[in-house]
Amino acid sequence: MTSLQIFPITGIGEIAPGDDLAGMLADSIDMLDHDVLVVTQKVVSKAEGRVVPIDVDDPRGHKAIVEDESVRILRRRGDLIISQTTHGFVCANAGVDLSNIEAGHAALLPVDSDRSARRIRDVVRARQSVEVGVIISDTFGRPWRRGVTDVAIGSAGIGPILDLRGTNDALGRELQVTEVCVVDEIAAAADLVMGKSTGYPAAIVRGAEASWFRKGSVVDEIVRDPQDDLFR
Amino acid sequence: MTSLQIFPITGIGEIAPGDDLAGMLADSIDMLDHDVLVVTQKVVSKAEGRVVPIDVDDPRGHKAIVEDESVRILRRRGDLIISQTTHGFVCANAGVDLSNIEAGHAALLPVDSDRSARRIRDVVRARQSVEVGVIISDTFGRPWRRGVTDVAIGSAGIGPILDLRGTNDALGRELQVTEVCVVDEIAAAADLVMGKSTGYPAAIVRGAEASWFRKGSVVDEIVRDPQDDLFR
Repeated sequence: MTSLQIFPITGIGEIAPGDDLAGMLADSIDMLDHDVLVVTQKVVSKAEGRVVPIDVDDPRGHKAIVEDESVRILRRRGDLIISQTTHGFVCANAGVDLSNIEAGHAALLPVDSDRSARRIRDVVRARQSVEVGVIISDTFGRPWRRGVTDVAIGSAGIGPILDLRGTNDALGRELQVTEVCVVDEIAAAADLVMGKSTGYPAAIVRGAEASWFRKGSVVDEIVRDPQDDLFR
Repeated sequence: MTSLQIFPITGIGEIAPGDDLAGMLADSIDMLDHDVLVVTQKVVSKAEGRVVPIDVDDPRGHKAIVEDESVRILRRRGDLIISQTTHGFVCANAGVDLSNIEAGHAALLPVDSDRSARRIRDVVRARQSVEVGVIISDTFGRPWRRGVTDVAIGSAGIGPILDLRGTNDALGRELQVTEVCVVDEIAAAADLVMGKSTGYPAAIVRGAEASWFRKGSVVDEIVRDPQDDLFR
């Protein structure tokens, strides 16, 4: 069994709308086949120009943007809105974020976070001739548990779900828990070296199993069909 | 910034009720200060004798055990029950599990999963004179997202919540998202090297930040107070 190594990409500075983030990542570090490059949503949104001005002294300003970014509101409490985004993600404030962004601005989620991952992957593959996976990560809370963790909102080149159906456990019995959200586990692992305040916008997870690499989309595979969901 | 290294502990065989799991882990590998030892719930439950016989041909048998282990049922659909355990965790089937356990038996969650972590930590510290964190992990689903990931159900020597309140982001603005569930991120990272079918019951996460190590309890810090919870 191999071990995993996880380290931040430290050479990326501030990102502005229009910056060639994919090129900067592809030039930052020598990657290996089966590396997973995890990139935080914030820098992707900035590079893609998904930044809007906001009057920070007007709480209604933030709320209006959150409502614009939502297709359905599930819960409200105080300033907090839990809603469903156009991608199908259910999260706080539709992913609209005021941290690590210039004062007077808010960052919105990428329009198509799987496409964002594919674009970065295409550039890395073209420049480095390596087969890597790319994950766009964001920070979500969850019901019933305090604290936030990073999850995947987009991916390319790595299967979001590791499907173990039909495989047996160590004692030869068919596994009950069989669909692992491997991209969420990788996003969480990467956050451990990026931190929230240090400002590293990306990390490499090295040593992933070759069988994890395939086509796949977070939006297609991870977003639970509302009719299968017990908590909408 | 340091990097993290994650590797499985491969020398642990099958565990039976009464086995000295803590001693086996403490003798398995040389640990370093600030290693985090992640141990899957299954082997902890087995060592602690939290295993009950079950008639696998009688679906009502499984259901009855799940109901016994639940203090409140949130949802039912088919054979699936989402319920709250005595610890306060909300999960599928109260954590009662039929995989990786002898046929005709089910594994229940440890009675006090933080205490389970403390016991293992005490033995490792006594034998190796190192300051480590210990996490007991289990595999949970979550609303709105398909696939399961590993989370922490018990911990010792490592703070479940990394509290960044009052700290600033890279641009000097106070962080909005400020309480990171670092033990869930570590549990998820460890699962990447343990797999579901390979049977590695434990892993080491090496390179964690010294500031993460402190007293703390998953049940006290991570279980969300029902009155703060928007989805009960």
